[in-house]
Amino acid sequence: VSAISPDGPASPAFPFAKIELAAERLKGHAHVTPVHTSRELDRLSQSQTFLKCENFQRTGAFKFRGAFNAVSSLTAAERARGVLTYSSGNHAQALALVGQLFSIPITVVMPNDAPAIKRAATAAYGARIISYDPDRITREQLGGEIAAREQLTLIPPYDHAEIVAGQGTAVREFLQQAPGLDLLLVPCGGGGLLSGSAIAAKALAPQCRVVGIEPELADDATRSFRTGVLHTVHHPPTIADGTRTPSLGTITFPLVRQYVDDMQTVSEDAIKAAVRFLFLRMKLVVEPSGALGIAVLLSGQIRGPGRIGVVISGGNLDPATAAQILPEP
Amino acid sequence: VSAISPDGPASPAFPFAKIELAAERLKGHAHVTPVHTSRELDRLSQSQTFLKCENFQRTGAFKFRGAFNAVSSLTAAERARGVLTYSSGNHAQALALVGQLFSIPITVVMPNDAPAIKRAATAAYGARIISYDPDRITREQLGGEIAAREQLTLIPPYDHAEIVAGQGTAVREFLQQAPGLDLLLVPCGGGGLLSGSAIAAKALAPQCRVVGIEPELADDATRSFRTGVLHTVHHPPTIADGTRTPSLGTITFPLVRQYVDDMQTVSEDAIKAAVRFLFLRMKLVVEPSGALGIAVLLSGQIRGPGRIGVVISGGNLDPATAAQILPEP
Repeated sequence: VSAISPDGPASPAFPFAKIELAAERLKGHAHVTPVHTSRELDRLSQSQTFLKCENFQRTGAFKFRGAFNAVSSLTAAERARGVLTYSSGNHAQALALVGQLFSIPITVVMPNDAPAIKRAATAAYGARIISYDPDRITREQLGGEIAAREQLTLIPPYDHAEIVAGQGTAVREFLQQAPGLDLLLVPCGGGGLLSGSAIAAKALAPQCRVVGIEPELADDATRSFRTGVLHTVHHPPTIADGTRTPSLGTITFPLVRQYVDDMQTVSEDAIKAAVRFLFLRMKLVVEPSGALGIAVLLSGQIRGPGRIGVVISGGNLDPATAAQILPEP
Repeated sequence: VSAISPDGPASPAFPFAKIELAAERLKGHAHVTPVHTSRELDRLSQSQTFLKCENFQRTGAFKFRGAFNAVSSLTAAERARGVLTYSSGNHAQALALVGQLFSIPITVVMPNDAPAIKRAATAAYGARIISYDPDRITREQLGGEIAAREQLTLIPPYDHAEIVAGQGTAVREFLQQAPGLDLLLVPCGGGGLLSGSAIAAKALAPQCRVVGIEPELADDATRSFRTGVLHTVHHPPTIADGTRTPSLGTITFPLVRQYVDDMQTVSEDAIKAAVRFLFLRMKLVVEPSGALGIAVLLSGQIRGPGRIGVVISGGNLDPATAAQILPEP
């Protein structure tokens, strides 16, 4: 099986069966998250818009899907030795919970300047946390060293086929709940959710355009997508902390190029306005990265007509960020 | 048809058929709001807890149900002349939207110190707003004068049989979504939601205990319930602004006495902790009045075992209140 990328050589297709298998594994463990709608949003976007609310997923973000699927795919021996990851965000919490559910030891490598609230949430699920100084060593280096020394299996936040497959289950589910979508808007950080979503959409709704959304301040994936060359951006000062990844991965970059139709960027103000709209009008707690698709719609960069699906990727909006965003500018 | 109140004379029962009729009228107009659950809440409350999310109702609160039902019950001539209410809160917004849907003129009498955000939201639905100085005249006096002069029909926020019937549809719906509840926790302001909920529960799930929840600082209904004498409280300084009503009404007081099993009060700190839990753990935007039932559970005043239903009455949490509540104390 292969697919032709529009301006590159044929690359092997990602088998949709991996997403189907992931969905089987997740049954009864991940929440079937609800789809919300809003007359006001429909009016503003001149479309029928459907929000896939992964902020209601376990640990507050889609990351639970990939983490659960990746751990499910390990052998009993690998599980017994334990799993390591590097993340200061939602993947760390998700993997820590999955470790608790499978009763396997989880190690998380986290920068020493990670927010205390995220460190505490990860520790609360029983994970071992190893801090490092990001000015002295990269998380990949340190994580690799510890994993090798302790024979732990590395499950990175996005650049992993089983992570991609797990994240793809959200859109597989979404297309059953909201069939006939013309357009799907998906946040893009490292590209795990975006590529999984696009693979699922192309298999189940081939007529549906898939557009990845990034903050303007962290537009590495958009530039990589357009040029075919991997761009990186370091410590981008965007409020959307889930998209502060340096670049797409070696697995996700070709998948995004192959399966995604387009990329769009949004301003910081548009992201904040989207979080505010979701809070005040739709009563949904959504973190900035999770609001990227709504930012594109409310800013008028994309409009209807048609049926537009938006993946709301997470709801881990911390109180300080909420207090900064919610008052009118 | 009559029912015996435990320590008073028999009073005529409120016909459940009025709630059934209201549900018919609301079909396709009110949202069927979702029920959310939380493993963490179940663990903390030692129960299976179900949240009826009326924060996702139109205009962000259950009030849409009563307002729509009350306007539906008017004659064409009454509708053409228009409707008046007094409210600075969710009932005003709900009635204003209902007026828009029915294309009938709505007048809202609002104190001149009402929050600008609530005034703007009501005006945005096209209602005429009349301000008054609460130190010089009561809203009942002014509203009565204007209604008489302009031949408007008064639809008060809670003390009205069709309002009670409309609010009762939320629990009628809830008991279909979460059958077999042992206990139902319902916020209490003027008693419209509480009495409607209790009437529906006693008709559909007679074994289910119904408990009304008030802030300690606004415990007039609790004292009225216990003593059989109507107590009032003026401008109580509770953060739960939906419960700042002075007292139960002439219709709702006997209904609460007759149908409700018990009343409980909660502290301001417990209310804030509940709003915070709903935000941080369940990703739900809930206003303080809407969080009263969760406050009772998290503070340990009521525990399981059993199946506990909680009515989350509204989500109109304004940014300033959110910024005050969300940071850890």
